[in-house]
Amino acid sequence: MSKSEKRTELEQLGEFGLIDELTKDFEPINDSTIKSIGDDAAVLAPTKNQRLISTDLLVEGIHFDLMYTPLKHLGYKSAVVNFSDIVAMNGTPKQMIVGLAVSNRFSLEALKELYAGFKAACKKYNVDLVGGDTTSSSSGLFISVSIVGEAPEEDVVYRSTAMQGDLLCVTGDLGGAYMGLMLLEREKKVFRESKGANIQPDLSGFDYILGRQLRPEARLDIVQALKKLDVKPTSMIDISDGLASEALHIARDSGLGVNLYEEKIPIDYSTHNMAEQFKLVPSLAALNGGEDYELLFTIDQKDYDKIKGMREITVIGHMVDKSFGENLITNDNCSIPLKAQGWDHMKQDSEKK
Amino acid sequence: MSKSEKRTELEQLGEFGLIDELTKDFEPINDSTIKSIGDDAAVLAPTKNQRLISTDLLVEGIHFDLMYTPLKHLGYKSAVVNFSDIVAMNGTPKQMIVGLAVSNRFSLEALKELYAGFKAACKKYNVDLVGGDTTSSSSGLFISVSIVGEAPEEDVVYRSTAMQGDLLCVTGDLGGAYMGLMLLEREKKVFRESKGANIQPDLSGFDYILGRQLRPEARLDIVQALKKLDVKPTSMIDISDGLASEALHIARDSGLGVNLYEEKIPIDYSTHNMAEQFKLVPSLAALNGGEDYELLFTIDQKDYDKIKGMREITVIGHMVDKSFGENLITNDNCSIPLKAQGWDHMKQDSEKK
Repeated sequence: MSKSEKRTELEQLGEFGLIDELTKDFEPINDSTIKSIGDDAAVLAPTKNQRLISTDLLVEGIHFDLMYTPLKHLGYKSAVVNFSDIVAMNGTPKQMIVGLAVSNRFSLEALKELYAGFKAACKKYNVDLVGGDTTSSSSGLFISVSIVGEAPEEDVVYRSTAMQGDLLCVTGDLGGAYMGLMLLEREKKVFRESKGANIQPDLSGFDYILGRQLRPEARLDIVQALKKLDVKPTSMIDISDGLASEALHIARDSGLGVNLYEEKIPIDYSTHNMAEQFKLVPSLAALNGGEDYELLFTIDQKDYDKIKGMREITVIGHMVDKSFGENLITNDNCSIPLKAQGWDHMKQDSEKK
Repeated sequence: MSKSEKRTELEQLGEFGLIDELTKDFEPINDSTIKSIGDDAAVLAPTKNQRLISTDLLVEGIHFDLMYTPLKHLGYKSAVVNFSDIVAMNGTPKQMIVGLAVSNRFSLEALKELYAGFKAACKKYNVDLVGGDTTSSSSGLFISVSIVGEAPEEDVVYRSTAMQGDLLCVTGDLGGAYMGLMLLEREKKVFRESKGANIQPDLSGFDYILGRQLRPEARLDIVQALKKLDVKPTSMIDISDGLASEALHIARDSGLGVNLYEEKIPIDYSTHNMAEQFKLVPSLAALNGGEDYELLFTIDQKDYDKIKGMREITVIGHMVDKSFGENLITNDNCSIPLKAQGWDHMKQDSEKK
């Protein structure tokens, strides 16, 4: 029996044995972690910084499909999407707590893969796994990650503090995660319909968009780069639900309008390519697709010169008075209302019924 | 149509509309809550205290059965079991974050009941609901609660710091939550087997044990009372998994043995009564039943005089050298090995298969 085939049943371990097995390799590295896993609560040292706290749930069948999601990638993504929430406040993620509800169809080896993903993410972002709760589920896999981050009070950036005239900027490129999902769903359908005809999924050459979907990153690098340039965003949010939805959050929470230019939206060639295969307008994947975990932020116009040389930042619009509304300026120079149409899990679920 | 019959479908609201509806009445009251719900992360002010963080998952079909658990009670309990983790560190709960995965069989009105329970718990314990994540589930209801608490460094109590000769103390009485669960399960079975014969569950006169199961409290009152008496426990844990399991945690984590006296275990008359109906030894319900959320702690013998007048605290044993082992001294004065046999959700699940 090869190592990869070994299967240790969870009931052989019990809850405490399982937690020990999964978390034994997580040594805390942050000074502020006083007590990690192993008591009723984790203990964090006082700090002069403000503490940032967020939580995200990832639910099997809603947020991920284990048919095409490797468990290690799932662990990595579950951690990173939470780190991204801290980064979006202009902070640094520090401590993570994981809640896991898992059915007995998972083996210890499978959960170790998941935790290998948590570990890879913690290592890359210098985050400590400090606690958690593991229980059984009668059906699917539920992952709840809570994250604690820090930032000096003067650094914290909200989504509600954009000013009229500020430039709207986005990091990296958009729509890739959504096109990766479309590709995975298409190949799953082909595989299912083939019913044993031995058709292998055709995923070659699509590494970039698959990586965007399966193994996103939090843009802590951008937060650090902006700090070095002495640029503090006037507002910021991470793009989990699609560019349109997030731009509307910034505008509405700041009491402003926004002009967003379709032609400025950064889209990778491979995203563009896949969108065309699906007969989709590429910018719609960016506007409504979600899960790119790039940062959307505003800066004062006076800071433009400082960021204009940064390849990873694109100015895609600007904030206007509320009376001008929320507008998408299309490639053919029409102004249409900016609408959030994508990625609403509640609505998705009802449509599936 | 009466108010209780109104049913608003979740898909009418979408995720953000739903969160707004559920959380609009939660006004933060703690000074340390700088930014509550409505951004990528909640923001907490710096404090000189250490911060305590914990998380608990409650899973439908594993931790609760909606056939006999009112949603408001479920919300209350979900919050309180987390507060209890902070209390068990000798701290004060301050901020709470809720993750909810919910299928569309729940209406807005049902979720509002759940949130009414969160609110009642937050109000009673002065805790702020500062954030969360709400998503859909393809099957049951999953509740993830994360809690942030505070305590001055010198106050924090771990489970690993008991000393030889320390007295082992417990608050309140034990086994009631388990007997409440047994009663509810029995009446559920009777109801199901009656198949429409209009048999009503016979729950009258059992308010105490039902309350212990459905609406537990965290013993913040004890933590506050001990502080007034200038007694700092040498170790502490809350009783979520049964007295035996928790006593073993304290002993093993402290590198000690323990003698626990069966006759000293505080058991309420109604717990005793129900155990006899089920032909169970009442102390076994206390030792293995779990979910009482009382505190188990050790104190230095010199502090005994300070606590001996407290009706809510019972000395049930003492810590001994590791070489003496972990012992239950039975009512007939036999010493038998203390074993944790109860309430292991992982094992329970596998037995159900």
